[in-house]
Amino acid sequence: MSASPTYGELTNQGASTNIAWHQASVDRAARAEQRGHRSAILWFTGLSGSGKSTLANAVNAALFQRGLATYVLDGDNVRHGLCKDLGFSDADREENIRRIGEVAKLFLDSGVIVLTAFVSPFRADRDKARALVDDGDFIEIHCAADLEVCESRDPKGLYAKARAGQIKEFTGISSPYEAPQAAELKIDTGSQELAESVDLVIKALQERGVIPAA
Amino acid sequence: MSASPTYGELTNQGASTNIAWHQASVDRAARAEQRGHRSAILWFTGLSGSGKSTLANAVNAALFQRGLATYVLDGDNVRHGLCKDLGFSDADREENIRRIGEVAKLFLDSGVIVLTAFVSPFRADRDKARALVDDGDFIEIHCAADLEVCESRDPKGLYAKARAGQIKEFTGISSPYEAPQAAELKIDTGSQELAESVDLVIKALQERGVIPAA
Repeated sequence: MSASPTYGELTNQGASTNIAWHQASVDRAARAEQRGHRSAILWFTGLSGSGKSTLANAVNAALFQRGLATYVLDGDNVRHGLCKDLGFSDADREENIRRIGEVAKLFLDSGVIVLTAFVSPFRADRDKARALVDDGDFIEIHCAADLEVCESRDPKGLYAKARAGQIKEFTGISSPYEAPQAAELKIDTGSQELAESVDLVIKALQERGVIPAA
Repeated sequence: MSASPTYGELTNQGASTNIAWHQASVDRAARAEQRGHRSAILWFTGLSGSGKSTLANAVNAALFQRGLATYVLDGDNVRHGLCKDLGFSDADREENIRRIGEVAKLFLDSGVIVLTAFVSPFRADRDKARALVDDGDFIEIHCAADLEVCESRDPKGLYAKARAGQIKEFTGISSPYEAPQAAELKIDTGSQELAESVDLVIKALQERGVIPAA
């Protein structure tokens, strides 16, 4: 007989033993120990044009340069893939954020610092994503640029279309943005330099013990 | 003026420049170089009780011990989260596998070797997941235990319920399992020892250049 377990032995011992053997060596804590940092969800929220994706990707690059495991979820890799069946109705927007929260939780479990960059305008939807994980694992970052600044940037031309009535229920114009009341971090991405904003996020991660001090 | 880009500069330069700056330093190739291994999707398919999850988790542990970035997607972390809105109708099963394929693609993009362990009985659904990624990124592993062996293990008591008519459309009993015709790897998980099966998968990853030789 072999010293290592076989399929039959595992399954005959019942599900609990089976699961214990599966997971004993590779849980979140084991990954954190091997990698030298905890995982976390950095949930960037703010108006279109507020700089969520720019900031998330810049933080991502800064963390990667330190050798940390990271990933950015944003419209580019989610809307045309996992959520391509969803439109922009209230129900679909809610389901979109629900799935993003669930996928972020999987990345969290895998030991990755995952950065999500979506408008996510509704407080209830963000709070549901937060409720999926433990306290301290969800770090909400409010990209708080004024509407005027966002509209003047209008990188995708969406505000112009919304003003022209070509986009219905556009956040900030014809649909509300519910700003966070107690975000872990609020950054004025309208006036602050990008590099300074990145530093603020990095410092927050160090203070919370997610990543080691420099 | 700062030498580093600001939100305004980035967005004023247009979307293409913006995206280039975002992603230049942290694409899949950069992660592979930093980590010393490529990413891949290891798609385990087979009957209930064939040992998919057992083998996937054992491979995961073996890769983790080598310091590689890995993650397992299985019923435990997907069915009660991302796919908790789905039942077992044909449409829901198809959507379940579609979402798993899309999430696996995100992990692949993040530089992780992701192992999926689902019955995934229909060839068309597996082929759709394969088609989401480039050639060589999708490694299908057929856990080919005989039905008799799987039913004799019956770790969750599902076969007994299916035989008693308490579960409708149970794969192998009342719903077909479409075995892969050209899986990258076929393992007799009914008779082969677990440790040997793990070695076969590791060797396949080495031969394909996903992970370095031992």
